[in-house]
Amino acid sequence: MQEDGIAVRKSRGGGRDARQRSRVNTQAAPAYITRAIPTYELLSEEGLQTLEFQADTILEEVGFEIRGDAEALNLFRLAGADLKEERLRFPRGMVRAIIQASTPKEFTQHARNRLRSVRIGGSATVLAPAYGSPFVIDLEKGRRYASIEDFRNLVKLTYLLPSLHHSGGTICEPVDIPVNKRHLAMVYAHMRYSDKPFMGGVTTAERAADSIEMCRLLFGTEFVADHCVILGNVNVNSPLVLDGEASRVIRTYARANQAAICVPFILGGAMGPVTTAGALALALAEAMVCVALTQLERPGAPAILGNFLSSMSLRSGAPTFGTPEPALAYFAVGQLARRLGVPLRCGGNLCASKAPDAQAAYESANSMWPAFLCGANFILHAAGWTEGGLSMSYEKLLMDAEQCGGFAVLASGLPLDENHLAMESFREVGPGKHFLGCAHTMRNFETAFFEFKLSDNNSFEQWQAEGSLDVRERSHQKWKAMLADYEMPPIDPGIDEALQDFVRRKTASVADSWY
Amino acid sequence: MQEDGIAVRKSRGGGRDARQRSRVNTQAAPAYITRAIPTYELLSEEGLQTLEFQADTILEEVGFEIRGDAEALNLFRLAGADLKEERLRFPRGMVRAIIQASTPKEFTQHARNRLRSVRIGGSATVLAPAYGSPFVIDLEKGRRYASIEDFRNLVKLTYLLPSLHHSGGTICEPVDIPVNKRHLAMVYAHMRYSDKPFMGGVTTAERAADSIEMCRLLFGTEFVADHCVILGNVNVNSPLVLDGEASRVIRTYARANQAAICVPFILGGAMGPVTTAGALALALAEAMVCVALTQLERPGAPAILGNFLSSMSLRSGAPTFGTPEPALAYFAVGQLARRLGVPLRCGGNLCASKAPDAQAAYESANSMWPAFLCGANFILHAAGWTEGGLSMSYEKLLMDAEQCGGFAVLASGLPLDENHLAMESFREVGPGKHFLGCAHTMRNFETAFFEFKLSDNNSFEQWQAEGSLDVRERSHQKWKAMLADYEMPPIDPGIDEALQDFVRRKTASVADSWY
Repeated sequence: MQEDGIAVRKSRGGGRDARQRSRVNTQAAPAYITRAIPTYELLSEEGLQTLEFQADTILEEVGFEIRGDAEALNLFRLAGADLKEERLRFPRGMVRAIIQASTPKEFTQHARNRLRSVRIGGSATVLAPAYGSPFVIDLEKGRRYASIEDFRNLVKLTYLLPSLHHSGGTICEPVDIPVNKRHLAMVYAHMRYSDKPFMGGVTTAERAADSIEMCRLLFGTEFVADHCVILGNVNVNSPLVLDGEASRVIRTYARANQAAICVPFILGGAMGPVTTAGALALALAEAMVCVALTQLERPGAPAILGNFLSSMSLRSGAPTFGTPEPALAYFAVGQLARRLGVPLRCGGNLCASKAPDAQAAYESANSMWPAFLCGANFILHAAGWTEGGLSMSYEKLLMDAEQCGGFAVLASGLPLDENHLAMESFREVGPGKHFLGCAHTMRNFETAFFEFKLSDNNSFEQWQAEGSLDVRERSHQKWKAMLADYEMPPIDPGIDEALQDFVRRKTASVADSWY
Repeated sequence: MQEDGIAVRKSRGGGRDARQRSRVNTQAAPAYITRAIPTYELLSEEGLQTLEFQADTILEEVGFEIRGDAEALNLFRLAGADLKEERLRFPRGMVRAIIQASTPKEFTQHARNRLRSVRIGGSATVLAPAYGSPFVIDLEKGRRYASIEDFRNLVKLTYLLPSLHHSGGTICEPVDIPVNKRHLAMVYAHMRYSDKPFMGGVTTAERAADSIEMCRLLFGTEFVADHCVILGNVNVNSPLVLDGEASRVIRTYARANQAAICVPFILGGAMGPVTTAGALALALAEAMVCVALTQLERPGAPAILGNFLSSMSLRSGAPTFGTPEPALAYFAVGQLARRLGVPLRCGGNLCASKAPDAQAAYESANSMWPAFLCGANFILHAAGWTEGGLSMSYEKLLMDAEQCGGFAVLASGLPLDENHLAMESFREVGPGKHFLGCAHTMRNFETAFFEFKLSDNNSFEQWQAEGSLDVRERSHQKWKAMLADYEMPPIDPGIDEALQDFVRRKTASVADSWY
């Protein structure tokens, strides 16, 4: 049900205020979505217990390995797990109990602009751009390896897009910068070119620590000690393995009271069973172990349960997106995360298409709808994801972001107050007349409907006269204009200098490394 | 919740049977979708009562006009409505009581191939192609007025597409045939080139009667007397008016025990309030009056509650699609229809885009997801709809139909039986190994994942080497090949001759008329 039965869409009154609001710049947009609409409950209590029971069975019988991190193994051993070499086996219910004893159900990730701080968990949903692609693609230059210039462009565009609440992390891989220094350039770009919250390095524990250290310069050491200011997105080495580097990264974030996102990355039939129920149970088991690790490292540290399940093409073995199986899995994992009491991360506008065509859009919408309705609290890859994550598309970034704006309105629910019920308009208009000029329409029409600005709703003839542009061409024009008009958010010059100095020193202190 | 907590996807076992099933032709597809997954419940009891109360208030205070059909007015007057000239005012609750006294909650629409008969209502969902466009568009010939050849092509393609359960009605307007004879050509084409269920003429009562008469020739007079074999889709002249021709069409279908679909067609701010809640209350009021009319004409006749609410572009006043307001309305109307106890028709893959580009796909998916999750029983416009309904796109017909196939799998729910839980696979594989060759994967991989056949999931390089085709180009190739391979379903030659004779006589009996 909508909250309290009747949801009030706060920002949608009529009259002069509304007209002013429709003109304000992106800065006034809400920092995140607060869902006033219900989640979609796919499974029954029995179904959920079945999956939980199986996750426990996997952890009890088959176990989970942490390879090359004796400290992490020892934490679990001391907590009651059975340890043989690097294989942990957990008494039924143990991992869940650790999680539920201390993991925050929701928390705030602070942004340097406090108006941009986001709530993660509960009825909040935070949308972030795609993550991790080695390539970028746009209509003018085509597909090529991403550079730090692309990375900065994408941070700037994300900053300007009001429906993206979060600057993300590795929006693309700036492959022109050595791997061991890339995190410095990326984190600095997030800090300097945006004032939205962001994510830090995860490829080694040292890079995670660098990212957090930069946060201390930006936010102040004391503030960082007891406030979440950065997320780290860590993939599990599915099935049932966490390598020592990943476990140290998770512990580094947790130790600093920052939030690790623990993400089983399962392509069904490869890193997990080919059937969705089995893959789901595996994902739950793996994510629970990693979240539990954050709590053993530091009870009360924020953490996020991640989820990435993909289907596969029978013809080629390639991952597929927008198919019904991952959608069903999303709905189930939403329920499982709520029962566990941990904020949930899902993927957003995912697709396999190489171009932002109709295939891309169908697949993306088929991922975003279930991610949204399952109650995901942090939706990564909400914009720009193309080619199974290999490319970040400039055009799709804007196209997806518009869709995110639509979901924000959906989330506010159906207002049923007197103005929206519009009984007066019926008394004024009557049968067979039109509502175009009635008082209620005049008072409400400017705020009544969300509109996709990149959509063309004109007549065929007008559309043709304007060059028969498809949405990706309109998007191309738009992002070029946005970048041209971009203005950096202000930053304290002393802090900026300290950050630059840190990056310089760190960069100079070691030789370039490309892995 | 899924039905019984755990849904069994009947058609998805493993092994040899599964491989054989994956090779069977389209004829073996289920005749309609049976939803094993829950509907999405947006509004609380309080919210639903608020909308119902307002619908009653509209009907009580403002009333509803039937213009030029004294018989219909008299039916309502005798049932207790207040009648002044052509304006009916209804005591609160009267219309609902009429509906609930006799309207079937669900019914079967029979097809001439009995394996294609569809269930309408309850947990059944039937998908039909788009309806009513004067234009067709395809990649080769561009956009042009539709012809009877296009109409036949589209009937043939719909026949061949397993995820479309219904042949639809006016798939496009064959404008090369006079308006007063068009229904004969269309109904004959549905009967001859397909064996799926279909819809009949609605522009005048006589044309509706002709359509039903043709059904008597096809199915036999006795069968038609007590079985539903045809639907008629009738738009209300919103707000709050039904013209006499439309009311006579509704009564013609009902009198013959056939199902009228009663569809308020409301562009918010024009034919109804600009705010969604008000438009919803109006739609409910109007549709209820029309469904009640079917029951006054013939208690127990099947009927369908229709819904078509669109948002509007603030920039141009043009209708917009895929926006959040109609999505919220869908969810609400699904709940309202279930409470009323009448099968629900919604629109499906709607879009404003002129081309089947990403705009079209986002907008379509944003319409289809809520139509599906709201529990709509008959989804018209599920495939092909382009340009706000002005064009039927050959390419989008196939693209949308594929999406419909995905929804069918979604509807079957998440199987949680032993095979799908795959516990044995974890025991076989263990941490850090892959599932590619394990026994469970080998047994299940051919049926594990739905795949969009028009999607390209290959590598960028391979896709490029194959010409960088986008999905609409692949769709173009596909429908050309399908039409080339099309084979007519068999029909009794005597029946065919009787149908042709009927069409010839009717066509010869009056002069051509173009309105």
